[in-house]
Amino acid sequence: MTGFVSLVGAGPGDPELLTLRALRRLREANLVLNDALVHTDLLELAPTAQRFYVGKRAGRHSIDQAGIHQLMIRAAKRGQRVVRLKAGDPFVFGRGGEEALALEAAGIAYEVVPGLSSATAAPLLAGIPLTHRGIASGFAVISGHAEAAYAPILDGIAPNALTLVVLMGVAQRAQIAARLIARGWSPDTPAALLFGASQPGSITQLLRLGELAAATGEPGTELPGILVIGEVVSLAEVIGHVTSAPLAERSL
Amino acid sequence: MTGFVSLVGAGPGDPELLTLRALRRLREANLVLNDALVHTDLLELAPTAQRFYVGKRAGRHSIDQAGIHQLMIRAAKRGQRVVRLKAGDPFVFGRGGEEALALEAAGIAYEVVPGLSSATAAPLLAGIPLTHRGIASGFAVISGHAEAAYAPILDGIAPNALTLVVLMGVAQRAQIAARLIARGWSPDTPAALLFGASQPGSITQLLRLGELAAATGEPGTELPGILVIGEVVSLAEVIGHVTSAPLAERSL
Repeated sequence: MTGFVSLVGAGPGDPELLTLRALRRLREANLVLNDALVHTDLLELAPTAQRFYVGKRAGRHSIDQAGIHQLMIRAAKRGQRVVRLKAGDPFVFGRGGEEALALEAAGIAYEVVPGLSSATAAPLLAGIPLTHRGIASGFAVISGHAEAAYAPILDGIAPNALTLVVLMGVAQRAQIAARLIARGWSPDTPAALLFGASQPGSITQLLRLGELAAATGEPGTELPGILVIGEVVSLAEVIGHVTSAPLAERSL
Repeated sequence: MTGFVSLVGAGPGDPELLTLRALRRLREANLVLNDALVHTDLLELAPTAQRFYVGKRAGRHSIDQAGIHQLMIRAAKRGQRVVRLKAGDPFVFGRGGEEALALEAAGIAYEVVPGLSSATAAPLLAGIPLTHRGIASGFAVISGHAEAAYAPILDGIAPNALTLVVLMGVAQRAQIAARLIARGWSPDTPAALLFGASQPGSITQLLRLGELAAATGEPGTELPGILVIGEVVSLAEVIGHVTSAPLAERSL
């Protein structure tokens, strides 16, 4: 049998938000490589596969990126069906492009399966439309992990030109808010801190750009958080209590 | 029975790219309201539901937005399980926010089910990572439908600050390219025209920003098209032949 690697987007966490293709790949996998943000419930969808955790342990990577590439390549060469399960979407801040390039270079057959990025899913589940007629005609998604990366982007966007979504930006929220206000964004611009979208215990905090620095931030959990900034956030006050469907039964 | 409305993202078209939740809602629906961009294969997933087409016919809306709201509200009041099936994601240029507000105002129980937006799925399926270490640390998604809406956004983004994704922008590609070049983007910036992502007959055209105006554009099809502009597009030359998985069997 020829080996094959699927770089699969796991979505924001809730197994119901997997795509049908992702579920099928998990069920057919011999080996699943997952990282820290992938919800453990998802791994139960691949009951027969060997699982290998390649995320962080105690803040340090258990294996480096080159090591992940080698694991995928070796398993595929042994004829295995490998699922590299990545939180969100593989091509939105997931290093999926690097993994695809590594597989290309090694001559391994592979595919990329898109997933729901928390950049769009988290605001939606909190009742925030990223675009809305008369309020916002576009949105930008950036990483708040490193100032060197986000600073030129924030400096390059005119105030209130579009809705801003900042992934991995909770720790830098004070710096990001200060930078935007210095650039001319109003401190009254609605902002949201969203933790653990689609997962049990998810938290939505609605506030103002000027209040972000003082926000309590991470509520003592390990839930990943994102930041949404823009007038559309105010819509969550009306549509943010969006109910879970009474029809839902968990039976994957 | 209490009625309930699900505003459901259908994803880019391929039924395998539905979420599990979306599939479940379709199967449980009494009434499905769909618009033009929803692939007909998806409707077969709701075999027992009444279906009502609310998209455009011969370029004109068969029913206006207020009419769609009334259809949803009346059906829910009659106790029906309504799925409002929307192409892509309901809260990315889908007027989903307006529909949620209308349901709120009418006191109808509802939910919003996220879907894969073609803004992220189409580039991925063409082998374009929207972000990539050392190349792009963010992306912006805008609508190219109306110059009055996109012009201030394009003018507000510094050249090459991030990857640009333009939905509904194929018809305006010459104006958009000219505007960006006038703003300082290099005419050599890689650009892609993507038609019908995830659907049979999908087309990827890789070119340069300066060539967009002269590109043949819509290849005589009704496939929806999107525009991607930025250095990351050049990665599609390496990873763009991403194979369809040999494992895939269509059996929903």
